Amino acid sequence: MASSKIDGLYKIRHSAAHVMAQAVLELYPEAKYAIGPPIDNGFYYDFDLGVTQDGTPRTFRPDDLKTIEKRMRQIIGGKHQFAYREVSAEEARQLFADQPYKLELIDGLAQGEIDEYGNEAAEKPVISTYKHDTFEDLCRGPHVEHTGRIVADAFKLLSVAGAYWRGDEKNPMLQRIYGTAWGNRKELRKHLDQLEEAKKRDHRKLGRELELFIFEEEVGPGLPLWLPRGAIIIDELERLAKETEEAAGYDRVRTPHLTKEDLFLRSGHLDFYKDSMYPPMEMDGVTYYVKPMNCPMHHKIFGSKLRSYREMPVRLTEYGTCYRYEQSGELFGLMRVRSMQMNDAHIYCTEEQFAEEFMRVIDLYKLYFDLFEIDRFVMRLSTHHPNKLGDKYVDNGPLWEQTEEMVRQAMTEGNVPFEEEPDEAAFYGPKIDVQIWSAIGREFTLATNQVDFAVPERFGLSYINAAGEEETPLCIHRAPLSTHERLIGFLIEHYGGNFPVWLSPEQARVIPVTSAHNAYAEQIEKRLADAGARVSADLSSDRMNNKIRLAQGMKVPYMLIVGDREVAEETVSVRRRDGARQNGMPVEEFVALVADRIASRAKTL
Amino acid sequence: MASSKIDGLYKIRHSAAHVMAQAVLELYPEAKYAIGPPIDNGFYYDFDLGVTQDGTPRTFRPDDLKTIEKRMRQIIGGKHQFAYREVSAEEARQLFADQPYKLELIDGLAQGEIDEYGNEAAEKPVISTYKHDTFEDLCRGPHVEHTGRIVADAFKLLSVAGAYWRGDEKNPMLQRIYGTAWGNRKELRKHLDQLEEAKKRDHRKLGRELELFIFEEEVGPGLPLWLPRGAIIIDELERLAKETEEAAGYDRVRTPHLTKEDLFLRSGHLDFYKDSMYPPMEMDGVTYYVKPMNCPMHHKIFGSKLRSYREMPVRLTEYGTCYRYEQSGELFGLMRVRSMQMNDAHIYCTEEQFAEEFMRVIDLYKLYFDLFEIDRFVMRLSTHHPNKLGDKYVDNGPLWEQTEEMVRQAMTEGNVPFEEEPDEAAFYGPKIDVQIWSAIGREFTLATNQVDFAVPERFGLSYINAAGEEETPLCIHRAPLSTHERLIGFLIEHYGGNFPVWLSPEQARVIPVTSAHNAYAEQIEKRLADAGARVSADLSSDRMNNKIRLAQGMKVPYMLIVGDREVAEETVSVRRRDGARQNGMPVEEFVALVADRIASRAKTL
Repeated sequence: MASSKIDGLYKIRHSAAHVMAQAVLELYPEAKYAIGPPIDNGFYYDFDLGVTQDGTPRTFRPDDLKTIEKRMRQIIGGKHQFAYREVSAEEARQLFADQPYKLELIDGLAQGEIDEYGNEAAEKPVISTYKHDTFEDLCRGPHVEHTGRIVADAFKLLSVAGAYWRGDEKNPMLQRIYGTAWGNRKELRKHLDQLEEAKKRDHRKLGRELELFIFEEEVGPGLPLWLPRGAIIIDELERLAKETEEAAGYDRVRTPHLTKEDLFLRSGHLDFYKDSMYPPMEMDGVTYYVKPMNCPMHHKIFGSKLRSYREMPVRLTEYGTCYRYEQSGELFGLMRVRSMQMNDAHIYCTEEQFAEEFMRVIDLYKLYFDLFEIDRFVMRLSTHHPNKLGDKYVDNGPLWEQTEEMVRQAMTEGNVPFEEEPDEAAFYGPKIDVQIWSAIGREFTLATNQVDFAVPERFGLSYINAAGEEETPLCIHRAPLSTHERLIGFLIEHYGGNFPVWLSPEQARVIPVTSAHNAYAEQIEKRLADAGARVSADLSSDRMNNKIRLAQGMKVPYMLIVGDREVAEETVSVRRRDGARQNGMPVEEFVALVADRIASRAKTL
Repeated sequence: MASSKIDGLYKIRHSAAHVMAQAVLELYPEAKYAIGPPIDNGFYYDFDLGVTQDGTPRTFRPDDLKTIEKRMRQIIGGKHQFAYREVSAEEARQLFADQPYKLELIDGLAQGEIDEYGNEAAEKPVISTYKHDTFEDLCRGPHVEHTGRIVADAFKLLSVAGAYWRGDEKNPMLQRIYGTAWGNRKELRKHLDQLEEAKKRDHRKLGRELELFIFEEEVGPGLPLWLPRGAIIIDELERLAKETEEAAGYDRVRTPHLTKEDLFLRSGHLDFYKDSMYPPMEMDGVTYYVKPMNCPMHHKIFGSKLRSYREMPVRLTEYGTCYRYEQSGELFGLMRVRSMQMNDAHIYCTEEQFAEEFMRVIDLYKLYFDLFEIDRFVMRLSTHHPNKLGDKYVDNGPLWEQTEEMVRQAMTEGNVPFEEEPDEAAFYGPKIDVQIWSAIGREFTLATNQVDFAVPERFGLSYINAAGEEETPLCIHRAPLSTHERLIGFLIEHYGGNFPVWLSPEQARVIPVTSAHNAYAEQIEKRLADAGARVSADLSSDRMNNKIRLAQGMKVPYMLIVGDREVAEETVSVRRRDGARQNGMPVEEFVALVADRIASRAKTL
């Protein structure tokens, strides 16, 4: 979390959470309060308001946020000091005697296992509180000096959502209030505008409006069905990947979506990854699984014949669809799904080839980022945790150290911006997640890249080196275009649905001024289709202005208006999606323009 | 079965089976005999030779077939009459008192349920036998007049295989001897040559040699892994389908491989098709299945928005991979598998549109047959059985009659050769299987085409007709390119691995005469690759002749030999796969030739 870096805004947001809690407790004196941390751009606090007569959790009333905000401004105006003190576990238990969530946290703190946010603690923590005005909270801080440091016109309460205590659906459902807080009014305004824009760009909303995909109750959560317009985007992305990867020396393969359990026993997935897999299918005494990964299948293909160092590296690539059983609470539109069409590949190489192959993968990333106009990205190197060898990670400390160092070196020498994240590796080696930022500044984890020094050996993979001896290859797992689901989810929000021409499901729509121009509209449609464009002519009985509105709604890059003058001059009048217009463009000129935009995967209209 | 038409050869083969059984019983007097029908090109007979000391079924010895053949010729020479008689069930039981398989068949005959081959009988049959020389068999005939009508030098015993009694793996394993019999020696010779050729073309053998696909013990039977060369063929076929279907007005979609059971409960698959499905996955109280069909997913997409008659027909297409649990005994290379990458589509149309849409599908078939040089095909119209409505078939007699008649009419008017096969329809409507014959005359069931008048209603599918009323569309299921697995299996055998250039995994291989010509070979490789050809240069330290042999082994259409002269003249010397040679062809000429063969999907080199 970027906001874990403590700065002025962090303290303001943390203090605002306390002030909010005070206001809520004044409004609902019986409320039990849970935790209230600062987060990216703001803060939240979770409350238990008791239950209603029918036993469901009581929720806030529609006007409560306004009331709470108003009271918060008063408390801010009071300039109450934030006072720190350390307490013993026993004192803490007395202080929070009627707060069951706090008592649970105190127990964790006293045993030295978890901190006051319920996270695992590295060392036995000191128990402390912060108090301002009438409100005291179990808290490590830090906070601003007094409530007056929170800028009264630079914060806002945004929304209320249900949240399970400690994120576990077996626990009670709490009411979470989200707020945002900034250094001044202008910053707040800017952030609210961004939120507004993000809402408009929400890929779930646009996915429906642009007819890209649907979810179906009878098919199941997290399993999108791609409508024709969405399938076009997928096909274009696959074509892109095929072209780039063919040029980069990859070999395409195809593997089944299910397999006997034997394969995942060998790979180790059933030891380390079973919780994320769909449950088994049993038939005739054999157990089958739907695959959560393509790797073991590719390993089998690498191992299907004797390999010589002369043919290394071997780069096997596939658009393989994998299935992972994400918890239903974690599913989110296309960003967290259960079926994943992955731009997956495995590169088998010698140790000497590693750095170059690794950098070639990074270069692929950069090529795609440039094409999609992603100008901000950072790589996050997830490494192992020495205490969890044999448990969460393959038990070979020295190899972990060595491989992680190889990756570090390659990235440093290649001038790739990266951060390290301990204890987040894959079970078989270090993982590189790529964080990218969309056009409106939202952060996404997109691609991943992993180094595998363990599994090739489990599969008995080898090649004959120049000295005639068998050696085990290293394996780089990579997916620079991520999954279709996540990438398209990102691209929808990144472009706000205004895809570049080559990715647009419909690239041009011909709109006759009256039905007298229908025949000409069809001619134009045919010429464009013959040139390889995805085009339609709207020959319905609608009025022209309505047809234009419909085309705009579908974010079609080019609308071609054709009336008497266009027919007479063999031209089209072009209205671009961005509002630009050009009347009387000769048909062949427009055909050439579109063909060029498609062929060059142009960024501009 | 084509041989169910009774002709001279049918009788010869049937009689040869009896003669063989006599010879076997003379060699193994304790043997129990089961059934021995004529089949395409020959006959077989199943025997139970008892068990060995370790309890496994006794098998024939290596020399037995020769001994049996020799004795058969003697029996043929004896010109023994085939004598027919009708017997009562009681007489039959006495006649075959020590033949348990015959007794089981007699019970079935006596109850009037099954005939002497164990098949369901339409009416209570007469019990009859045929006797020649010392051998009498439960048999309806017909037979030749006497054993001398079997041509002594025009039959041959081919092989022995294990076969379960009545095809059920719970029953004892019998020993089946296959034989072939013809009208004269020349016909036999021709058939044996064809068998030899078919063996060379066996797709399992060529699949391995040409590195197209593998099966892996740890992945499971019937689940092929496609190697890079096989995946290229798949990609080319998909490109073909995409081009043709885009031109034919299809919309491409993508759907997941698994779904909640709700979908298949609604579609009826769980009522009618469960035996062919992989077993369920249970998670969090929800049951999931891997899909055996794409249809219900497409129905959901059709139903995802309001449809007007103006947009009908809607043609949804997908390369969807389906999974069916075929019995392990029925798996056979690529021809019977458990994972199926289907060229699947569903056409939703009005009743008035049916005939035209149906014929457009047939035209698609013909287009593909022409491209693949399949000049012999027949459509088999499988219809319902009135006694099985509600059991095997959706319970609506009049709709069955009406739809079957619509199909009959469309095929008759379109001059499509077809045969009818009662009681073989899909549960939701009549099915049209397409039988094709390969270049060496082997028969395959390739594509299928089905009319569905039942399921759209179950999904509540509708469109608004011109009068503003809701109507249920008809649905045509079609898969003219079949599955990748079956089509590629067929194409391997059809072409004997000598794929046309556009389908060849490797289209050209450059072979330098000595290593001094390696640089030029690489230049040629690059020029061809830039022109879009799949090409490699063999720069290994092998000798040239060995390189040529390797390229021939992989059935590469063009080998380009480059030595001093070619370097000096900027030419290549072309050796075609079919043996033709052309020395000193200018490089640009060859590049143009290959580019043309690829772009036009040419049939010739």
